[in-house]
Amino acid sequence: MLSFTEEQDYLDYLDRQARVPRGFRFYRRSITFNAAERPGDEAYRMNLSYLHSDAVETPAAVMTTTNRFPGAPVILARERIAAGHLRGVLVNNKVANVGAETGLADARRLADCTAHTFAVPERQILSVSTGVIGWRLPVNEMESAIPRLPDSPCSPREFSQAIMTTDRYPKLAWSGGPGEPGPVMLGAAKGAGMVEPNLATMLVFFLTDAVVPPVLLDRVQRRVVNRSFNALSVDGDQSTSDMVVAMAGGASGVELNERDLETLWQPVADALALEIVRNGEGTSHVIEVIIRGCPDASLARKLGRHVVDSPLVKTAISGNDPNVGRILGALGDGLSRFDPEGRIDTSRLTIALAERVVYRDGSFVLNQESERILAGTFQAAAMDPVLKGYPQDRGTVPIIFDFRGEARESVRVLGSDLSHEYIRVNADYRT
Amino acid sequence: MLSFTEEQDYLDYLDRQARVPRGFRFYRRSITFNAAERPGDEAYRMNLSYLHSDAVETPAAVMTTTNRFPGAPVILARERIAAGHLRGVLVNNKVANVGAETGLADARRLADCTAHTFAVPERQILSVSTGVIGWRLPVNEMESAIPRLPDSPCSPREFSQAIMTTDRYPKLAWSGGPGEPGPVMLGAAKGAGMVEPNLATMLVFFLTDAVVPPVLLDRVQRRVVNRSFNALSVDGDQSTSDMVVAMAGGASGVELNERDLETLWQPVADALALEIVRNGEGTSHVIEVIIRGCPDASLARKLGRHVVDSPLVKTAISGNDPNVGRILGALGDGLSRFDPEGRIDTSRLTIALAERVVYRDGSFVLNQESERILAGTFQAAAMDPVLKGYPQDRGTVPIIFDFRGEARESVRVLGSDLSHEYIRVNADYRT
Repeated sequence: MLSFTEEQDYLDYLDRQARVPRGFRFYRRSITFNAAERPGDEAYRMNLSYLHSDAVETPAAVMTTTNRFPGAPVILARERIAAGHLRGVLVNNKVANVGAETGLADARRLADCTAHTFAVPERQILSVSTGVIGWRLPVNEMESAIPRLPDSPCSPREFSQAIMTTDRYPKLAWSGGPGEPGPVMLGAAKGAGMVEPNLATMLVFFLTDAVVPPVLLDRVQRRVVNRSFNALSVDGDQSTSDMVVAMAGGASGVELNERDLETLWQPVADALALEIVRNGEGTSHVIEVIIRGCPDASLARKLGRHVVDSPLVKTAISGNDPNVGRILGALGDGLSRFDPEGRIDTSRLTIALAERVVYRDGSFVLNQESERILAGTFQAAAMDPVLKGYPQDRGTVPIIFDFRGEARESVRVLGSDLSHEYIRVNADYRT
Repeated sequence: MLSFTEEQDYLDYLDRQARVPRGFRFYRRSITFNAAERPGDEAYRMNLSYLHSDAVETPAAVMTTTNRFPGAPVILARERIAAGHLRGVLVNNKVANVGAETGLADARRLADCTAHTFAVPERQILSVSTGVIGWRLPVNEMESAIPRLPDSPCSPREFSQAIMTTDRYPKLAWSGGPGEPGPVMLGAAKGAGMVEPNLATMLVFFLTDAVVPPVLLDRVQRRVVNRSFNALSVDGDQSTSDMVVAMAGGASGVELNERDLETLWQPVADALALEIVRNGEGTSHVIEVIIRGCPDASLARKLGRHVVDSPLVKTAISGNDPNVGRILGALGDGLSRFDPEGRIDTSRLTIALAERVVYRDGSFVLNQESERILAGTFQAAAMDPVLKGYPQDRGTVPIIFDFRGEARESVRVLGSDLSHEYIRVNADYRT
């Protein structure tokens, strides 16, 4: 990611540089509505966005939250992806469509209305929502606006802005081209720490003009997402509405094998995952836990998440404090939870912060001088806590656990620190 | 707990009212030392405390942290409790004796020195530490002070003060007597949210003059601790040094059966657990999650901890916001982690806040008026965030999940909210 100092520079950069796979179109409109749940309030504003594939047969794959109280859009998506093809996705922000009595019927109505507008089969359209939990969608206002979507085409950058809630900047990433003849992968994501009631939702859309059958698309997406979005944690919880959707329109005419698809896809997912962590309100450091030599990659991922979720680790890093005791304590607590039988050998564990070894052979190897140097390193990785409308790339605070056992790959988990600003936006928004 | 407005009133209350089992003695001294790890700093102050049983055969039971990187005192305690009897426990604050190269040898030296001073077998003395992780104990200074402990007897209240680290007030609880002829149970605890590096440690000491064999003491302690200290969460992690020690001197001559012992013990443990949550720095609300009708009590406890550990729930409650969406989201995420096969039926779930039903039959049943009332209830449960040297009893914020299934008992989990003050004390202590 380049470095920016002005929001407009960043938007221009996205407009100029983003590679867009052929055969996809983007639309957006805004509406205003009065929430039945807030009778006295002013009207609210909602963005309606729509993502469309020209190809009559567009292989698609969806991954949804595993939260046991999924929102209506998640239930609809699970139903409609069964056949492995999609033509479009309607997205609204402001209201999440979770826990409202008519939620599923509403989602269906909106998707069907969109299908009629764009003359595609109803079963190939999703209606995806993000925003306040518990409110009913303003279905009438939305149904009035949908038929006018075709008059409002937009750029991918405008689409990625329209789906934002508390995000500080739009997030687009891409690979393939320019100058390369092969297919392109474009990803657009929304997600950040929560502010207004329950805006945790992470939505990610991947579009490619490669030729990929649905089964392969699904399989590679699971791997790519596990290494990126499933390896980050901002607020600890998976939301009721998280969703990742991939569509492969095939307009490039180039068929990709599994390995080449993964090579095209992974960096796009990794870049978006990093930006989701980085653009969270109240985030001043991105924490990067790397676990090496752990024979069980799934366990390694759980340990990494446990450490980046520890409020004691998060607050220490927020204060630029290389507090190895808290880090060791969090790892030890995670091991007792996720490896209760003690299968993982901890006797050879080393811990390094920013590549400096701080724990080895069961003892700390930190002194005042190295602590001072580490504190300076952490300070250099600190972003302005009042985030900007563009990425501030200050790198990460790397915590490296090396169990020195046999492992096929190292595991990386991203998280954010816990600052005053986080509490302010999450606790005080009503007061 | 009574209500106090002055620290001295509270201390007087403890001195006057606490019931003390016969056959135990308390001692304390302070020392100063220079930390090898902080060459330039001023001298630090450390309290040395000692708890002694007169009975030559004193049944005892110990529960220790399951953290995979236990401190030296934990390793020593596991070794020495094997025989089921203890005569005394030496406790120091300020340095935790975790991750120092000579840690175990140091703990042994101190325990043995104490054993010689009080003329009891070495194997029946523990050395317990709480404080900074990574520093070496000032063993020489401590060994000079231990032989003078017999000259410094103190009251149980003074003992409970001496073992404090970041605790805001000493914590004692008791049951049995006065006016009742039966035995007495006294508990003393230290523990609070962390402030200085790694002071998470929770230490609890239970003393009774009941006649109880070691095996029974151990069995009942496990049950009592599971329902109290294992059902609370302040910082999420178990520390490297958590320990609960029980000693049954038998001076009352009254033998207790399992049920009567539990009846005597449980309220003492519950009271101390509540105070550990309540006296955490940065705590403004005590959150009480109650899970009813969940057929699996162990799962219920995990779900309760997951909800009270959710930063989104914690910050909402800190802001007096009855944010049911976040609560439902955290429960749903917990279920997906701890009940991945979906064994628990969620279709009949109700959620109540402060006894007011807010979610039922898959939908929220909250309106603006009931939200306003709930916000007022939360406000009334808020303590002065700058905690005092005595308990402020404002009750709790109760979150009740009722799965309406068959369950032998309901499960209760306590946690604390996440306030600005928490971040300040946990992130900013160096700056």
